Amino acid sequence: MSLSSSSIDILISEVGPRDGLQSIDPIMTTAAKKQWISALAAAGLQEIEVGSFVSAKRVPQLADTGEIVLHAKQIPGLTVAVLVANLRGAEAAIAAGADKITVPLSISETHSLRNVGRNHAQMLEEVAAIAALIRAQPDSRRPKLEGGLSTAFGCTLEGRIAAPQVVDIAERLMMAGCDEVGLSDTTGYANPKQVLELTHAVRRAVGSENLTGIHLHNTRGQGLANVMAALEAGLTTIDASLAGIGGCPFAPGASGNIVTEDLVFLLESMGLRTGIHFERLWQARRVLRENLPREVELYGFTADAGLPLGFVPATPQ
Amino acid sequence: MSLSSSSIDILISEVGPRDGLQSIDPIMTTAAKKQWISALAAAGLQEIEVGSFVSAKRVPQLADTGEIVLHAKQIPGLTVAVLVANLRGAEAAIAAGADKITVPLSISETHSLRNVGRNHAQMLEEVAAIAALIRAQPDSRRPKLEGGLSTAFGCTLEGRIAAPQVVDIAERLMMAGCDEVGLSDTTGYANPKQVLELTHAVRRAVGSENLTGIHLHNTRGQGLANVMAALEAGLTTIDASLAGIGGCPFAPGASGNIVTEDLVFLLESMGLRTGIHFERLWQARRVLRENLPREVELYGFTADAGLPLGFVPATPQ
Repeated sequence: MSLSSSSIDILISEVGPRDGLQSIDPIMTTAAKKQWISALAAAGLQEIEVGSFVSAKRVPQLADTGEIVLHAKQIPGLTVAVLVANLRGAEAAIAAGADKITVPLSISETHSLRNVGRNHAQMLEEVAAIAALIRAQPDSRRPKLEGGLSTAFGCTLEGRIAAPQVVDIAERLMMAGCDEVGLSDTTGYANPKQVLELTHAVRRAVGSENLTGIHLHNTRGQGLANVMAALEAGLTTIDASLAGIGGCPFAPGASGNIVTEDLVFLLESMGLRTGIHFERLWQARRVLRENLPREVELYGFTADAGLPLGFVPATPQ
Repeated sequence: MSLSSSSIDILISEVGPRDGLQSIDPIMTTAAKKQWISALAAAGLQEIEVGSFVSAKRVPQLADTGEIVLHAKQIPGLTVAVLVANLRGAEAAIAAGADKITVPLSISETHSLRNVGRNHAQMLEEVAAIAALIRAQPDSRRPKLEGGLSTAFGCTLEGRIAAPQVVDIAERLMMAGCDEVGLSDTTGYANPKQVLELTHAVRRAVGSENLTGIHLHNTRGQGLANVMAALEAGLTTIDASLAGIGGCPFAPGASGNIVTEDLVFLLESMGLRTGIHFERLWQARRVLRENLPREVELYGFTADAGLPLGFVPATPQ
């Protein structure tokens, strides 16, 4: 069904089941989540962030992440990614068998304290403990560890974030034992020039092979323009969310993720293979629509407009 | 109030009063249009397509273009642009005192025949007649003539459009007496790679100084990604519409123009001066909102999300 990872040019890391769902109040059933994740994988998505191991009280929407990981692990070729905030979450992620664990660290210390009640030193200690735990696992149970550079492009509390702060935290995350770092425009502040410059700066510091991905938001409509800069900078993994879910992009706490469907169209139209099959992608959107309350709005233009007449995607369909 | 044109890096050509309004059924009063255009100019927009001289029966929304041009001409420093489809329209545009006339020509001959009932040869004859009429005017009444390369990136009737077809028509428009040509993604089919390649191809044929502008649509969400390619290709004039009006981007006949506010944010955040004052731009959006029926939706993210904390635009505010 899906192409092997060697046959794609850009990896789209689908974050809808985690980043999208966590900002939606009505809880999606475990069965519906499984159906949706299977539909995403069937469309050709090769990496899916399926949930997070955080307090079920804090994010009740994702309380079933353990069962979801077990389901996703049965899909051949799929990289099953999860988010964790601390060592306890990492233990649960490893127990469930996740392939990839992301620990976000806010470059804005104000945001970090507000969000998880920890300063940079405390977060880096936690990351080091997680890295040690991972190293202690047998090979077959050893997930990849990514340090997420949150608020890297600016913070709603601190405002501008200077590039050297991001570079410093990236270096310290790698020293703490991360396998890689990822840039994240948590606030939707990024512009293409900044994406290009910050990517170059961090890659110079930690090595290009250790920064390959970026998480962009469309809060100010700049998502795909920023993707253009990410591609120019040489990044090869782009996060996106089916139908851009994550709620209204300017509502408090909403993500405003870039829309998977529009991103796939952008890349495929430029001849970059994503491994995605368009008809099956529309099918995954229908599965999502059927499993979300009507009041949750779906975003994205390409799904509604359809593909251009005579359009030939780069990925064989 | 507004900066002189020598103080800007990119000229945004606002097309809302023409391209936006023509796809909205309820007719905006002449007084409201004047108020809106004045608000746009006060925000720093230096070129506005204020209407079109076409059959009032066909586009009743723009029947008052003559009076609108007279109003706009009183705004110091503003380039008053209009669209015309034939010689009769050009006569009216010159009589009203327009500074710039755009004649669109569909590269897709099928579309041209369907849309204006004329093939390429007939359209080029019409353009030549318009050019002759303009040359016969005294200097003070001589508008600039732009040939618009419509459906340049693909056509909903013909599908793919080959680059040599676009280059050929561009050359023939210049030979017919146009001062310049402009690329237009009428159908929202364009991708950044195509924008870059087609811009280079046409500029090589007609000279860079004779292709400086592009009209992009956001039909598939690719508007600002395509702007990135246009900037890379060296273009310096970008069309956009306040609040992206032109109706739902995937409805039949709708334009799906790129959103002026989001474009200004993109450019200013990268250090490119547009001459636009953000607070006055929000004011122009309010004027538009007040003068449109509630059911007409306004697009764009930046106006709702607001500017980032600590944001410093390139244009002095």
